[in-house]
Amino acid sequence: MKRIGFIGLGIMGNPMSQNLLKAGFNVSVNDLNDKAVAKLAALGAKEQTPENMAKNTDIIITMLPAAKQVWSVLNGPKGILQNAHPGLIILDMSSIGPTDAKAIAQEAATHQVETLDAPVSGGEPKAIDGTLSIMVGGKKETFAKVTDVLQAMGHDIVLVGDHGSGVTAKLANQIIVNLNIAALSEALVLAAKAGIDIEKMYQAIRGGLAGSAVMDAKVPLILDRNFKPGGTMAINMKDLTNVLQTAHDLDVPVPFSSQLLEIFHALKADGKIMDDHGGIVQYFEKIANVTVTRGEK
Amino acid sequence: MKRIGFIGLGIMGNPMSQNLLKAGFNVSVNDLNDKAVAKLAALGAKEQTPENMAKNTDIIITMLPAAKQVWSVLNGPKGILQNAHPGLIILDMSSIGPTDAKAIAQEAATHQVETLDAPVSGGEPKAIDGTLSIMVGGKKETFAKVTDVLQAMGHDIVLVGDHGSGVTAKLANQIIVNLNIAALSEALVLAAKAGIDIEKMYQAIRGGLAGSAVMDAKVPLILDRNFKPGGTMAINMKDLTNVLQTAHDLDVPVPFSSQLLEIFHALKADGKIMDDHGGIVQYFEKIANVTVTRGEK
Repeated sequence: MKRIGFIGLGIMGNPMSQNLLKAGFNVSVNDLNDKAVAKLAALGAKEQTPENMAKNTDIIITMLPAAKQVWSVLNGPKGILQNAHPGLIILDMSSIGPTDAKAIAQEAATHQVETLDAPVSGGEPKAIDGTLSIMVGGKKETFAKVTDVLQAMGHDIVLVGDHGSGVTAKLANQIIVNLNIAALSEALVLAAKAGIDIEKMYQAIRGGLAGSAVMDAKVPLILDRNFKPGGTMAINMKDLTNVLQTAHDLDVPVPFSSQLLEIFHALKADGKIMDDHGGIVQYFEKIANVTVTRGEK
Repeated sequence: MKRIGFIGLGIMGNPMSQNLLKAGFNVSVNDLNDKAVAKLAALGAKEQTPENMAKNTDIIITMLPAAKQVWSVLNGPKGILQNAHPGLIILDMSSIGPTDAKAIAQEAATHQVETLDAPVSGGEPKAIDGTLSIMVGGKKETFAKVTDVLQAMGHDIVLVGDHGSGVTAKLANQIIVNLNIAALSEALVLAAKAGIDIEKMYQAIRGGLAGSAVMDAKVPLILDRNFKPGGTMAINMKDLTNVLQTAHDLDVPVPFSSQLLEIFHALKADGKIMDDHGGIVQYFEKIANVTVTRGEK
């Protein structure tokens, strides 16, 4: 059975590594958070340093907040690349930009290490269910070697192109998700200020062309005033920052994403940035002086 | 059986009036387009002027392009209001602004005529199937009198508030639909320019939080370069113009809707305004100099 090293046991990495254990893989784990490591160890995972994973596993999965953290486990004398055996595969499932993903692929190749960028969509609930969408960039032959591993964590698993394509598809995904929340927010705040019963309106429109996964996920939470993350605005702000960088590198203007990034900065100034991205609605509520809530107006 | 007058036999009114006939209602019709009238007459509808409808029917449905056309059949010596019998109900299913909807309700009340604003969502396919979403504004008692009529045309039928609330909910719906298309467009154009296989990316993300009715309806058409309307950008531009008017009347800033309205004006200048609103993507394609298509890049 394949030996897998898993680095990064956060909201996503924790359930993802549990699903690998359930699927019967030999899983080693690593995280700065000792509690997270202890939890996985209790379920049958072994603790290993990145250095030892590089020597003793077939595949290392990284699921880290940003490119900086990925580079930090790759580089240096105790890093993965210096210590890797030839043929090691690094499956970076973090959401980073394509410039970093391509640079990682290139740097790894000099150590005879293969890489794939394979970020996910679907959030904590789908990480727990093992039904994440996984967008993969890299070589077909490498992809074929990890398909069984990806299937233990995800449902829609697609190789979308060469190195960097997975993370770029994820950026496209994040544009859609976050702008769909912004659209919903603008609409809900207008309707609330007009005195409309938002729950009834939601029932009327959810089955039509306005319906979306975002609407069904976020409207009930907004009505409950529940902005506990899920995906924090801080993480989504990082993604939109990568969107702008990537788009501008390609000469693609992204006016809506740019406007939303400014709104994230406003929400950060307002102390809301660790809320769920459903909390984007609070920007519109504050400027329009109305709250989207349940029931009587 | 209730006698219904139906004014406005366009893309939506045509199948909606056919569904009323199928449900067994006594239907009279009126339109400036003789062919549209002849088609419904062949199916069992009677042609009547608005003046005669006002005297001889229980409910008059108006399904017209904008408020101007609704007012034109209501007012004047041959108009509905001057000739209405007390207790007539006007069910305006056009997508107009709430200022007009409220003014119509007020004016009609002086003639002992009840009104409801009851715009729809779902487009031609759901108009044909009789499964439209219908957002209704007005009095509960009036709504109760037309429920059977609405059920012949729609599926999700909800009274969302008093006069003007139906059309405001429709504006909220239009914000979401059109901005979801704009979000999709920005994401697709970025991904296309990065060389990603768009069909594969669509398969990867449609089941996740980015998934939406707009994505499933528009991505296949965009990949086919099919911008035959459905809902023209001209009609959606009218709705967004009403969004800005309504929002500003309520002191609700709508920065994303405002930006999209400017893009509609750019597309109008570019000769695209009679395309389906899936054609919003063409704005982004033109400025980024790339086309979102199927297959090999």
